[in-house]
Formats: sequence, structure tokens, C-alpha cells
Amino acid sequence: MIIAIDVMGGDNAPDSVLKGVGKALNETKSKLLLVGNEEIIKKDISKYCNKLDRIDIRHTSETIDNDDKPVQAVRRKKDSSMVVALEMLRKKEVSAVISAGNTGALLTGSLLKVGRIKGIDRPALAPIYPTKRGFSLLIDAGANVDCKPRNLLEFAIMGSIYLENVLNVNKPKVGIVNIGTEEGKGNKLVSEAYEILKESNLNFVGNIEARDIPSGIVDVIVCDGFVGNVILKLTEGVAMGISTMLKEQLVKNFVRKIAALTLKNGLKDFKSKLDYTEYGGAPLLGVKGAVIKAHGSSDAKAIKNAIKYGEVFARNNVIESIEKEIVRIGADSIE
Amino acid sequence: MIIAIDVMGGDNAPDSVLKGVGKALNETKSKLLLVGNEEIIKKDISKYCNKLDRIDIRHTSETIDNDDKPVQAVRRKKDSSMVVALEMLRKKEVSAVISAGNTGALLTGSLLKVGRIKGIDRPALAPIYPTKRGFSLLIDAGANVDCKPRNLLEFAIMGSIYLENVLNVNKPKVGIVNIGTEEGKGNKLVSEAYEILKESNLNFVGNIEARDIPSGIVDVIVCDGFVGNVILKLTEGVAMGISTMLKEQLVKNFVRKIAALTLKNGLKDFKSKLDYTEYGGAPLLGVKGAVIKAHGSSDAKAIKNAIKYGEVFARNNVIESIEKEIVRIGADSIE
Repeated sequence: MIIAIDVMGGDNAPDSVLKGVGKALNETKSKLLLVGNEEIIKKDISKYCNKLDRIDIRHTSETIDNDDKPVQAVRRKKDSSMVVALEMLRKKEVSAVISAGNTGALLTGSLLKVGRIKGIDRPALAPIYPTKRGFSLLIDAGANVDCKPRNLLEFAIMGSIYLENVLNVNKPKVGIVNIGTEEGKGNKLVSEAYEILKESNLNFVGNIEARDIPSGIVDVIVCDGFVGNVILKLTEGVAMGISTMLKEQLVKNFVRKIAALTLKNGLKDFKSKLDYTEYGGAPLLGVKGAVIKAHGSSDAKAIKNAIKYGEVFARNNVIESIEKEIVRIGADSIE
Repeated sequence: MIIAIDVMGGDNAPDSVLKGVGKALNETKSKLLLVGNEEIIKKDISKYCNKLDRIDIRHTSETIDNDDKPVQAVRRKKDSSMVVALEMLRKKEVSAVISAGNTGALLTGSLLKVGRIKGIDRPALAPIYPTKRGFSLLIDAGANVDCKPRNLLEFAIMGSIYLENVLNVNKPKVGIVNIGTEEGKGNKLVSEAYEILKESNLNFVGNIEARDIPSGIVDVIVCDGFVGNVILKLTEGVAMGISTMLKEQLVKNFVRKIAALTLKNGLKDFKSKLDYTEYGGAPLLGVKGAVIKAHGSSDAKAIKNAIKYGEVFARNNVIESIEKEIVRIGADSIE
């Protein structure tokens, strides 16, 4: 199996990406195809990697930046590391693509180059959401800001299959984010989606309130991409806010300062629980290939984990399972 | 000025409500009209209140419960404490209504009995959101789950006026919750609302990301009621989750336990910052009277603060200012 890595994408590229590749060689079995500027890669790769026999380079001359407009970038920068990697995925020359680059461009590029699974109207981004119990999958986290009820069913199906096939969750519990738990609650979108999910053969447990998300009340958190994006970013903001306030409190006087030092390890354990880099990125579900969007500010560990999960994603028939399920429920004929 | 208090509404009613009334007598100047079961009120009121000359009782025979359906409850329970209080507000026999009861019923009752301000399509709930800097106003927090762009303008106007008139915020900064800060981002609702708010004479600073809400980036956080409800409840859930995880970490070993004891006061300061009871409830903005929805699980302090802010709300011409602004922008002719 060959995994293509967009070496030029991400805030800390290409350094963190190459470091991550070095780490990933120890925890994966695939060949890693480094897509990017050959000169830069060759200069640094031996610093970080000791298993050069499992590495190949595909030179590209362009880079998509964070402020590039997605559609334009994908259309014009044909020799960019991201577009070339996606083209190779389309031709099945590689089995997965990992990129920490421009999210919009990766979504657009995946749709235009790799294409949707038949019957999937809206591919979605599905990051891991760390919870008290472990983790949930949040789908959609921002790929689709205006959704139809049917899209939420797609999200629920794809999320369930990914959790089962990649993260070994048995019969994932699915819930729709709503303003109350009773049937009939919420806006038009979610109340109609409830009716559809109720009839599905997913492990649908009904509506969940945002208050219960951090406790891990369900495995698949289903929502439209606008709400999902708010959930993801607000969680980050609240956690950061609390952490800052705690720090301020802790340095308020000397005794507390001592206490704070003592607590350092405790806080470290706690932080690692909330650490997104553990799961290394979000799969883009619904396109005909394994695409993993690593966080823009990914460090080496995040890249390493993204590659690791990308390998499992490609190996464990996620896409085939989604295709089969879509055919089974007869949604492959919907245009 | 007379303020009507729904003594029977709330998870801890009537006890916490009466206790709160007792405290409020020391911090307000208005007469407090206690609406509810006279027998119960008379039995307990002297326990909690020492200024009985500023208290009146209006006996009612019914109570709206939390699981009552809003519209049915308001129509059928005509002699309930909530409905009677709202009727008195309509007739201007009282200047404000405070209730910790069934939120849906209070919204419906306010619309049906008190009525909308001319030109306001959708009244909205506007709780205080505690931030690092102090507080913001979140509008709408759940009254309207499906909104039109025009409604977000109404929310922004009403929120700004409330902050100026009641909480003395000068030229409140207004932001729309979105998935990115650039103009044109987001779903249909918010991208169209952006265009409308840009043309208004509010202190509109543009889109804000959910990540920046806890830092207090704006004074008025504008969103539809579905998103607002998710923001409010998720904040609560994340804060609770972090607090639980910290506690678990803290008791993990003896040294940390000692440290935790030392930190107790620090954590207390921090908790009070996140304390919703400080602001005592959410004004319902857009109806022709001062209605304050106190949290269902309000304690005496929350009720006291709700009464206090209810008094300022009624005294400081919030409704008149909203009416004037709606006429000024010509929205009073929109049906």
C-alpha cells in the first residue's frame, strides 16, 4: 500500500510533516510517497527518516496556501502537492492522501479530482471529539453549512462505518445534536432528519443536547457543518479560556504557585485527554478514496497519527462498506 | 413600580423564589407582587422577608409544570401564576415579570398575552454569557430555531439596546457567530444577515468564530436560537467536563490532594466567574413588557438578581428604545 503525503501543506510544513513521516515509518507498514518540492525534501529527509527504502518522492512545483481560494487554487495550481496527490488517489496509484493544507482546497480538490461515492450527496469532515469516556466522531465539522435532512442520514451512516472499521467501535451509538431530547424538537432540518434516522438500521439513540457531548453520550455526533464547526471551535475556546483563568488563579499567590507546580503532572494528564493530535486529523468521508485532513497546525505527532489512521482507513474497506450500505438502502439512485 | 414574581415556577419553587424575594427587598426599591398560591406564600413569607410592607400577594390556583406543553398550558391554565402575571403585565398593572418556570410556556405566554413590539418579527431570549473580560449577551439562546436574516438584525438591535440601557455598556460591539471571519463565509442565513448588519448603524464588527466567544471578543453574540442553544449548553458541558476531569486528576495521589485543598479558594474565584446566577436570568426581548426568564434551577441568589435586573430593565426604557429604533429604520411597517 502507498500513502501520499502532501509535504507542503500546513502551518509548520514542510518541517513537521517530514518529522511526522519519520515517526510514521516506525508505526506503519505502507510505502510513503512524499509529494512536494524534491529539493527541499531531499535536503531534510535524512535528518528525520532512517527507513529511506520505504520512501518515494514525487516532485511538484507549486503549493496551495491557506489564503488561496479553494476552487481557483485547485483549478489553477495543477502541479501543487495537494492536487497531484489527489490525482494519484483518483488513478489509484496511491491508497490514501494525508494533508494538513488549506481545508477548503482539500474538500474541493477531493470532490473535483477523486469524486463522490455514488449516492452520497455531501461528503463530510469527521474529526474525533475527545470525551470523558474516550472519543466520539463529530460529523459534519464544517464541509457543508447548508444541509438537507437526507445529508444527516449520510453523515450518520458514514460516521458509524468509520468508527466500526477504523476505530473498532461496536454498533456505534448515533445522536442528532438538538436543543432538547424529545422527538419533534428543534429546527426543520433536525426534526425531519430524526424521522429518517428513526427508520434506519443504525444504532440511533435520538436527539442529544450539546451539554452532554463532552461526556461522550454517543459515538457519532450528527449535525450540519455549521453547527459542527461551532461545536468544535467553541470546545477549544472554552477549554482554552478555563485553562487561562486557572493559570491566572494559580499564580495569584505564593502558596498557590507551589500547589500549581505540584499539579503540573496532573494537568498534563488532563491535557493529553483533550489532545486532538492523538487522532491526527479528520477523515473526509464520502469521496471515493481515503483522504485525511490533518489540523493546519499539526506537529510531527499529529502528522504521524494522521498517516497511521490513513493507513487503517484505506485498508479496512471503509469506502466499500459505505458504497454497499448506500446501495442497500437504495440511496444510490438518488441524484 | 411593581414587579410580579411567578412564585410557583422553577425546579426549587416556591422555596428558592421566596428566599430570593427576601434578598431582593434589600437591593431593589419596587413593590414585589407575589403571584401564586396564597396559602403557601403566607405560610412561608415571614420566614424569608422582613419588609412585608413592600410585598403584595395575588392568589392563583394553578401551576404550569415543566412538562406541560407551552401553548396548551397557556391557553388552559388561565389561573396559573405565570399566565396571571403576564396578564397583569399586559394591562400595565405591573412593570415586569420574573419567572423561573417552563421556558416554552413563558415565551408563548409572553407572545400571546403581552404581544410583540411592532416591527419585531421574533422576540428572543438573551442570557448573559460569562467571558474572560466580564460578560457578553447571547441572542438568541433558543426562542427561534428557524430564522430569517432580518431576525438576526432584530436580535442585534435589541441586544445592543439592552446592554446599553441595563448594563451600561457603551456602543456594544456586535458580532455574528460564523465558521470563519471573512465576509461571505457561512450558511445562507448568516451570510445574508452580514449584509444587513453591515448597513445598520450598530457597532457591527463582523463575523466571529465560536473559538473566540469565551474570550469576550464582542458584547452582543448574534445567532439563531438553535446555534445559541448549542453554544450555551456546550459551554456548560465543557466546563463541567473539565471540572470533573480536574477533580479526578487532583485526587489521584496524596500530594495532589494537598495541592487541591490549597487551590480550593482559587477554584472558587474561578467558578464565580462562570456563575450564571450572578446575572439572574435572561431577558425576553421583543415583547411589549419586561419579562425575565430565570434559570429553571435558580437558587435564591439567582432569583434576587433576576428581580434586580428586571427592575432596571423596566425602569431604563429598553422597550421604548427598541420601539424607536425599529421606527427609525422603518422596520415597523414590515409585517
